[in-house]
Amino acid sequence: MKQILIINGPNLNLLGTREPGIYGSQTMDSVITGLRQRYPDIELLYYQSNHEGDLIDRIHAADKEGISGIVLNAGAYTHTSLAIADAIAAVSVPVVEVHISNISSREPIRHNSLITPVCRGIIAGFGTDSYRLAIESLL
Amino acid sequence: MKQILIINGPNLNLLGTREPGIYGSQTMDSVITGLRQRYPDIELLYYQSNHEGDLIDRIHAADKEGISGIVLNAGAYTHTSLAIADAIAAVSVPVVEVHISNISSREPIRHNSLITPVCRGIIAGFGTDSYRLAIESLL
Amino acid sequence: MKQILIINGPNLNLLGTREPGIYGSQTMDSVITGLRQRYPDIELLYYQSNHEGDLIDRIHAADKEGISGIVLNAGAYTHTSLAIADAIAAVSVPVVEVHISNISSREPIRHNSLITPVCRGIIAGFGTDSYRLAIESLL
Amino acid sequence: MKQILIINGPNLNLLGTREPGIYGSQTMDSVITGLRQRYPDIELLYYQSNHEGDLIDRIHAADKEGISGIVLNAGAYTHTSLAIADAIAAVSVPVVEVHISNISSREPIRHNSLITPVCRGIIAGFGTDSYRLAIESLL
Amino acid sequence: MKQILIINGPNLNLLGTREPGIYGSQTMDSVITGLRQRYPDIELLYYQSNHEGDLIDRIHAADKEGISGIVLNAGAYTHTSLAIADAIAAVSVPVVEVHISNISSREPIRHNSLITPVCRGIIAGFGTDSYRLAIESLL
Amino acid sequence: MKQILIINGPNLNLLGTREPGIYGSQTMDSVITGLRQRYPDIELLYYQSNHEGDLIDRIHAADKEGISGIVLNAGAYTHTSLAIADAIAAVSVPVVEVHISNISSREPIRHNSLITPVCRGIIAGFGTDSYRLAIESLL
Amino acid sequence: MKQILIINGPNLNLLGTREPGIYGSQTMDSVITGLRQRYPDIELLYYQSNHEGDLIDRIHAADKEGISGIVLNAGAYTHTSLAIADAIAAVSVPVVEVHISNISSREPIRHNSLITPVCRGIIAGFGTDSYRLAIESLL
Amino acid sequence: MKQILIINGPNLNLLGTREPGIYGSQTMDSVITGLRQRYPDIELLYYQSNHEGDLIDRIHAADKEGISGIVLNAGAYTHTSLAIADAIAAVSVPVVEVHISNISSREPIRHNSLITPVCRGIIAGFGTDSYRLAIESLL
Amino acid sequence: MKQILIINGPNLNLLGTREPGIYGSQTMDSVITGLRQRYPDIELLYYQSNHEGDLIDRIHAADKEGISGIVLNAGAYTHTSLAIADAIAAVSVPVVEVHISNISSREPIRHNSLITPVCRGIIAGFGTDSYRLAIESLL
Amino acid sequence: MKQILIINGPNLNLLGTREPGIYGSQTMDSVITGLRQRYPDIELLYYQSNHEGDLIDRIHAADKEGISGIVLNAGAYTHTSLAIADAIAAVSVPVVEVHISNISSREPIRHNSLITPVCRGIIAGFGTDSYRLAIESLL
Amino acid sequence: MKQILIINGPNLNLLGTREPGIYGSQTMDSVITGLRQRYPDIELLYYQSNHEGDLIDRIHAADKEGISGIVLNAGAYTHTSLAIADAIAAVSVPVVEVHISNISSREPIRHNSLITPVCRGIIAGFGTDSYRLAIESLL
Amino acid sequence: MKQILIINGPNLNLLGTREPGIYGSQTMDSVITGLRQRYPDIELLYYQSNHEGDLIDRIHAADKEGISGIVLNAGAYTHTSLAIADAIAAVSVPVVEVHISNISSREPIRHNSLITPVCRGIIAGFGTDSYRLAIESLL
Repeated sequence: MKQILIINGPNLNLLGTREPGIYGSQTMDSVITGLRQRYPDIELLYYQSNHEGDLIDRIHAADKEGISGIVLNAGAYTHTSLAIADAIAAVSVPVVEVHISNISSREPIRHNSLITPVCRGIIAGFGTDSYRLAIESLL
Repeated sequence: MKQILIINGPNLNLLGTREPGIYGSQTMDSVITGLRQRYPDIELLYYQSNHEGDLIDRIHAADKEGISGIVLNAGAYTHTSLAIADAIAAVSVPVVEVHISNISSREPIRHNSLITPVCRGIIAGFGTDSYRLAIESLL
Repeated sequence: MKQILIINGPNLNLLGTREPGIYGSQTMDSVITGLRQRYPDIELLYYQSNHEGDLIDRIHAADKEGISGIVLNAGAYTHTSLAIADAIAAVSVPVVEVHISNISSREPIRHNSLITPVCRGIIAGFGTDSYRLAIESLL
Repeated sequence: MKQILIINGPNLNLLGTREPGIYGSQTMDSVITGLRQRYPDIELLYYQSNHEGDLIDRIHAADKEGISGIVLNAGAYTHTSLAIADAIAAVSVPVVEVHISNISSREPIRHNSLITPVCRGIIAGFGTDSYRLAIESLL
Repeated sequence: MKQILIINGPNLNLLGTREPGIYGSQTMDSVITGLRQRYPDIELLYYQSNHEGDLIDRIHAADKEGISGIVLNAGAYTHTSLAIADAIAAVSVPVVEVHISNISSREPIRHNSLITPVCRGIIAGFGTDSYRLAIESLL
Repeated sequence: MKQILIINGPNLNLLGTREPGIYGSQTMDSVITGLRQRYPDIELLYYQSNHEGDLIDRIHAADKEGISGIVLNAGAYTHTSLAIADAIAAVSVPVVEVHISNISSREPIRHNSLITPVCRGIIAGFGTDSYRLAIESLL
Repeated sequence: MKQILIINGPNLNLLGTREPGIYGSQTMDSVITGLRQRYPDIELLYYQSNHEGDLIDRIHAADKEGISGIVLNAGAYTHTSLAIADAIAAVSVPVVEVHISNISSREPIRHNSLITPVCRGIIAGFGTDSYRLAIESLL
Repeated sequence: MKQILIINGPNLNLLGTREPGIYGSQTMDSVITGLRQRYPDIELLYYQSNHEGDLIDRIHAADKEGISGIVLNAGAYTHTSLAIADAIAAVSVPVVEVHISNISSREPIRHNSLITPVCRGIIAGFGTDSYRLAIESLL
Repeated sequence: MKQILIINGPNLNLLGTREPGIYGSQTMDSVITGLRQRYPDIELLYYQSNHEGDLIDRIHAADKEGISGIVLNAGAYTHTSLAIADAIAAVSVPVVEVHISNISSREPIRHNSLITPVCRGIIAGFGTDSYRLAIESLL
Repeated sequence: MKQILIINGPNLNLLGTREPGIYGSQTMDSVITGLRQRYPDIELLYYQSNHEGDLIDRIHAADKEGISGIVLNAGAYTHTSLAIADAIAAVSVPVVEVHISNISSREPIRHNSLITPVCRGIIAGFGTDSYRLAIESLL
Repeated sequence: MKQILIINGPNLNLLGTREPGIYGSQTMDSVITGLRQRYPDIELLYYQSNHEGDLIDRIHAADKEGISGIVLNAGAYTHTSLAIADAIAAVSVPVVEVHISNISSREPIRHNSLITPVCRGIIAGFGTDSYRLAIESLL
Repeated sequence: MKQILIINGPNLNLLGTREPGIYGSQTMDSVITGLRQRYPDIELLYYQSNHEGDLIDRIHAADKEGISGIVLNAGAYTHTSLAIADAIAAVSVPVVEVHISNISSREPIRHNSLITPVCRGIIAGFGTDSYRLAIESLL
């Protein structure tokens, strides 16, 4: 059975309560539940951490575990973590970058992603539906 | 029956022969044919032009025709046309930006998109599968 | 009888419906009608296009037709079209730049006009009254 | 009777003798005289100072005096005085920015105006006729 | 009896009426009255001017008068006046910089303070309570 | 009883021994002891970590614990961590930014704080007395 | 018989009357006539348009027609049209960039050419003789 | 008898006490006395103000009084006052810029002088001897 | 016996498998083994972590343990971690910066090291031999 | 008999062996021999030096010798030598800039030429044929 | 007898013929002759070279020869030679920087001098009289 | 017997007397003597020049002489000489860049090295021991 891992970065544990005007009021739990129902033929793993190093460790581990693809929402680390970008470049598992909001219509510091160049592709702006589209792209 | 319009910008008429290392060797005709087969319940319209003004005119017209959504690959105009961005902002039909290649891993001039801030979202880097994912996002 | 030509650039055909918070709800038709009534002694011509090349062609033609002055709202091309600026510099008919909104209080990309240096002057921020003031400046 | 106040900033007391190639040879006295004749139904006030603080004080006072509108040529302070911009934002009397020359065709330091974003609009490049057009815009 | 001097720069004479969304609706008079009541053991002096030169003169004078400390809200001159910064560096009386609003969350031109490097410290964002905290820091 | 949490970021565990010319020779232990004596009516909590993720976790937890206010010295993360800024924006507990040194008079990389815009206010340059002033601002 | 195509961009239809101090007083007609006489063994085609899209269409067509080489003076589009650069990169016909004036000694906006990197070479500054030298380079 | 006017800008009234490591411990009074003794055949006038507007007024007046030359140390206004630069450009009396310290070896904000381009020349770095050299240059 | 500590930052645990074109195919284990054989008279300690905070903690601890020198390859944190730079500045143990690849010939974001200014020196570009040279420099 | 001087700058003595992927494998000797055969009616002089000062001296001398034109490939000095640019501006002999490679498609530091603005024109990208085209331009 | 050495950099051997609009028509020979007559009590040495290395060698030698002061017009090397700046910093003989023209009113590349920070002072804009003023400053 | 060539650039002939706070008080003669004693099995050649062209000539010659490696301290030319970088790229002999001081902790102009990208590696900050480490790297 194919495994896909969703990794969420800093502050995304607060999804549903954090700035709902930008991120919506759905929690990540309900997003994952919905996706598992929609894609019964894949094993959907989920991991969240506020620690840059944890995210790197998890990407390394996913590569060794033979996971088929990673859907990564690196949150604010998208714009500041060259180390996560290096981790993606260092592994062979394909990584798809997602964002809930349209980061290009927010503050300038969120316009540049350090990780896009090493990802297979980017999907941004579709709310939590971005996660579903990313899974679609990996099938 | 729901109508979705795919608009391709400059040089995308050459898809399949143009720099296949970047854009692949599939022609746009076969992409459209495949999508129509996959989505029999929607009417899929297609328009391509190398003229910035034509693209603006087509976006205006789509809005008046009551089309449900636009999938827009503005090609090089992505990076230089504020007028197309204004056209998107001026209409109510939702527009999804797509790119075949991962523009963030190419030359710096292709890293900044003028139209992303006014689009619903962006999907880039999945080859011609980007068009399918954009349609998915509009359903 | 003196001829003055108003040229409107991209998306200004949508005036009245496009982002009324910025551009107001008056249509260009009613603006032109009002100006013709106010200035019965001049022949007021009007031209609009979304095509950069059309705007250049029209400026060239106006110069050959012996028109007395051009009132130009180049829309988004104001900020991206060096070719229109070159057209203005290449002809002898005086051109006055107008904008409906105060472009300096909008996004940074709208702060720099490529055409101001080759125009006789600039009038911006007075809503559709900017057109009237521009005609005044040419009398 | 409606009052309109023209405020001139630094070095504009020298108008007529200062760099006539740029600013023309007409003195401000004759400009004011001409405008008063042209607009007999309004009371046209005039104030000039080389002091940034004086200009701020005058703007504050105009607001308290119930003046209908200010025509402001802030001279070089246009490009360096955030304090004057703050004064304009702090009062309710409408302010129209004018310039005799086309500042966009001069040195780069004169291309950026700190006060345009808080003014109702800008009129520049029409010689001393810019003052008349500004009054027109306030009527 | 210890003397502390509060100096306010341009447009702060309008406090209470100027942009209350940013600056609040309390007047400076009531702020000073409140502080004098709270700190009966210090003599609290107050000075306001819209003139950069006046502020420099006052700083020089304070140093000669043996004042114990200056609480300075330089308003817009914070961002444009190297001369005020030089005045602070030239005297031995300690100067604490205050701002009513959180200047870092406003327009970019307000993010850089020329005077912070020569002040003892900075306190910003606490509304008019910033003045009290500055006095605290000098005791 | 009101709870206030002081959070210190990277390298601040070395306070007292680290670059005493810049940071002074007082340890954080003695600072906290002094503050607890001065403010007997509030419960003063203290947390320090060199880990960006730990700081984010602690901010999240403080919000859930109903703490009244956070005094945050994010150390070097002040200038590099958008994720901490996002954490502050995501919670409702007020956060006051403090710095021991006057960061504006140090190297350019320390002039820009990513977290100031989302904090209630900033207090910097008063040595360890900055912590006391921050507590004052929260009372 | 070998075919070489000269393509001229915006405003070059005015050659001979437009800013003769920069571009000289020779018309393009006489340039073409002179070149046809000098190179009787090649078929010299000529195309001019003020429309960016037309220039792209013509480059595409030239490639399909088996033309041996293109001499391209893209005028102001040299500095703003990534789409023309993409067209050149997309075809196999060699393109030589020419300019009548020495663009490096003009305004900064004319110093950067978007199309040079994808052209075989550049020839600039020799007046209309630049066209002859470009033909030489293609023989 | 020839008149030369020395104008000193902000904070130079403190010469001798202000940052003696940079500016030396000689007062301006003793500098002027020394220069008058050295140049008995010229009338040496002296003016100092901390007010930008005063400096402009004095330059204007000097021009009308027929003064032979101005030696100007504009202090911090050197780097921020376009209005003083305009005043110099507006008058016919030659102005020589002087600085006591070598401004190029100080902070970056002091490296750029707005007034040098409109002065006859610049003399900087020779301590108070810079004033003597400037007088020499005017003889 | 003298102790030298080699600290490796993020993704260097993958050495030997990660992008071997850039980093070579030798593992860190074999590098350490080789160095221990070459330098039998020193105790060579080794630490690796993907966590920025862990690296800071380890540097602090090394200082307390009385280690003679640190050889630090901070990986991607070299370019983003001011906190690690602060840690190095805060301790007295000498730190030598090393890189396997020549970071100056890679992407621009890798050209600037935040930690070089606080290290004793830098050695980069010699493959894994960089570690040996760094040890040499500490003997 | 007309004299034309080809001047080659640094490292061009290695032509034919240096980075043949960029510069080709033809030596400068064979280039000169070929050109002398092709243009028997002109005296073709050749000079090469790796010394900036030598190139300046040679340009000065050429002007005094009455040479008709200089073909200059300044190599890397193209991008760093304002002194050579000054030498060209100081003499009356026309200078044509040539480059073997298309410098605009190489690293950014090679995109800006300091000498183009003072040369008659530029020819770049045609391999060693650039020298022939430059001679053509001088005839 | 006191020795002062005037060093002239590249292209200054052409003084009198080179761009007389900028540099005047006086030759350096006549300047030197005039200065020797004016200052009979000092031995005035003169050196000119177009070679950066020669200028460095001469500065080194002057220091060893015990020369009292150097008057240096480094020409274009002023703006590009860090090596000459290092030479000045490395010797103990005082160096005064001179320029014939007012470099701040010329092209931007001439606004920044690399050598000013290490010179005693700068004198610029007084034509060849700049040399005399520099000698004055050294007496 | 293996030959290694040490090349020193401008002002390094003054080592031992030049700014000893930065460069130390050891002369280059004693450095070379020490290295020859330490490495008796290699022939250590030494060359120093203040002339950029001489350094290029020497690099070219070294390549022809079959020298095994070059240790290059290009001094200030490190930051300004693209021509030396081109010379290194043009030859096959490996070049190691060294610096006595830690250039990253000095002025910004010394932070960027033009030659690092074409060198095998860089060693900086270890005083004159940097030369020994560079020789080590070549063995």
